[in-house]
Amino acid sequence: MIKILVDCFGGDHSPQAPVAGALAALAANADLHLILTGDEARIKAELAGKAYDAARLDIVHAPEVIGCEEKPTDVIRLKRNSSMMKAIILLRDEDDIAALVSTGSTGALVTGALVRLGRIPGVIRPAFCPLLPTMDGGIVGICDSGANVEVTPAHLRQFAIMASLYLENVYGVERPRTALLNVGKEAEKGDDLRREAYRLLQETPSVNFLGNMESRDLLSGAYDLVVADGFSGNVLVKTTEGTAIELLKKLRKDIYSRTRYKLGALLMKRMFREEKEFMNYQNYGGSVLLGTSKVVVKGHGSSKAVAVEKCIGQAYRMETSRLSAKIEAEIAKYEHYEDYV
Amino acid sequence: MIKILVDCFGGDHSPQAPVAGALAALAANADLHLILTGDEARIKAELAGKAYDAARLDIVHAPEVIGCEEKPTDVIRLKRNSSMMKAIILLRDEDDIAALVSTGSTGALVTGALVRLGRIPGVIRPAFCPLLPTMDGGIVGICDSGANVEVTPAHLRQFAIMASLYLENVYGVERPRTALLNVGKEAEKGDDLRREAYRLLQETPSVNFLGNMESRDLLSGAYDLVVADGFSGNVLVKTTEGTAIELLKKLRKDIYSRTRYKLGALLMKRMFREEKEFMNYQNYGGSVLLGTSKVVVKGHGSSKAVAVEKCIGQAYRMETSRLSAKIEAEIAKYEHYEDYV
Repeated sequence: MIKILVDCFGGDHSPQAPVAGALAALAANADLHLILTGDEARIKAELAGKAYDAARLDIVHAPEVIGCEEKPTDVIRLKRNSSMMKAIILLRDEDDIAALVSTGSTGALVTGALVRLGRIPGVIRPAFCPLLPTMDGGIVGICDSGANVEVTPAHLRQFAIMASLYLENVYGVERPRTALLNVGKEAEKGDDLRREAYRLLQETPSVNFLGNMESRDLLSGAYDLVVADGFSGNVLVKTTEGTAIELLKKLRKDIYSRTRYKLGALLMKRMFREEKEFMNYQNYGGSVLLGTSKVVVKGHGSSKAVAVEKCIGQAYRMETSRLSAKIEAEIAKYEHYEDYV
Repeated sequence: MIKILVDCFGGDHSPQAPVAGALAALAANADLHLILTGDEARIKAELAGKAYDAARLDIVHAPEVIGCEEKPTDVIRLKRNSSMMKAIILLRDEDDIAALVSTGSTGALVTGALVRLGRIPGVIRPAFCPLLPTMDGGIVGICDSGANVEVTPAHLRQFAIMASLYLENVYGVERPRTALLNVGKEAEKGDDLRREAYRLLQETPSVNFLGNMESRDLLSGAYDLVVADGFSGNVLVKTTEGTAIELLKKLRKDIYSRTRYKLGALLMKRMFREEKEFMNYQNYGGSVLLGTSKVVVKGHGSSKAVAVEKCIGQAYRMETSRLSAKIEAEIAKYEHYEDYV
């Protein structure tokens, strides 16, 4: 039995989406056991009238709510009875609980996970790895996308190792084609951080390193994984999402500007619906935190039930593929990283 | 008479596009005088049979070609007879020449301009400021987008001051609404650089500072100017361009997958053409280098004639609006910047 915690508060559609997502995941996986954290009465109200295997679903009452303006360090100190912090502490203390899925505050989740859970032995810094769809129908991972705004070359190398193993083990991508985000393709581009990371990645057999990538090539399908510091990785992911959303909004607005276009769009209705689904990042699961001692998956704040279900599926596959043990073994092959910390 | 140099080699469509763009600009502005640099015979071949005011057009022979793999520092030392370096030296030495437009190597242009031209008094680091279209029909400037991969808070403040003056004087944007690119909206987000820059910008009356911006809001129309280090600014601009291009390519491909969609697209032909034009960055001019002692405009390598013409127009308006003098005066109001260099 795989036991996974689902933080039922903090997201935009809480607790409906986490509870509905949890029930869907429960129905799909016979060896899954879920523990929902949050206001018990409200969670029970969501569960009322629904069919599910009650033997595989627990609720842990956690009435406190985290405000979006609260400082992460305050949250982990003062909000021990919030749905997120209660879940993190359970994850730390209970050996048989494997993972946590949350759609709550990113900052609080990262800080809470780092402080309370600790890291996989050898990992210097855990990092986020969200996925985006590529234009040839594949996916591309970006690591880090915001857990670490300041990094060293050794951090970047570990991000590459961890995220390569994640893509291989959870998505079946063999030898993920990996690039370093930079301002140009040539090896000498960028700052000292990029040049040293380039050199280190070239010397890392665990990583199928192809060289530098310019951000305009992210969606081309030429890469499976892009390694970045958390600041520029965050810009990369959010700019892609933002541009896609704004362009679709503009198309919709323009279509409604003329009858002729509305007629045309009617013929293309199914296509536009498919494009919208294609660009809906909720379909690509959450952003996993790689390198913490136990599995943590961060769903988008706007996650609906299907997105939460996907996050639970990611956590499940990370656990069943024994990803943490593989990360530990692979990281251990590189002894000299401490030099760069 | 405003004298502007046009580097006719180095771009993808050289020398056709620069020469045709130059002739269009010449026809549109009676007080414009252009000096074309590059292989004289090839430029003359392009000019053959075309009507223009020969009294306002000169050619300076510069036969050497810069390869795209050449190191900028080698180029400025060894390629003095290239169309770009010859233009930079003329710009430096001839008082009556106001500006240079080039579609050649960005690295060589920045390095050449910094080393040979020097800076406006008080400016610590010149920076690029390209423009992108916003979804409400406006524009947004991004400064820096790649001239400085490593910056200090004082640099970021100067970028904000210079680019605000540029948008006001060349595009008529009053009190440009300015944001700092960051990983979240709150003042304490990001690293020390962002937090200190946030504080400095708040204390800068020359800048209409609205706070931090997350990259997904770039195209929303809520901002006229985004200030960034050259690395993440580069990621911001290229990701936006790349995502727009890839999405349009996908739409086109999907349209051709079914007769029904092709029919629909036929009705929407004009709309799709307009979307394509809307997202074509060539329509928004080049990336100006702000802070060098004389005006430098970098056109996209893929610039066609109309894009080169727009770059010349930008250089012309930067000169006629006396932008450099205004930058010098405004920068001088902030005495203590040296503390942060």
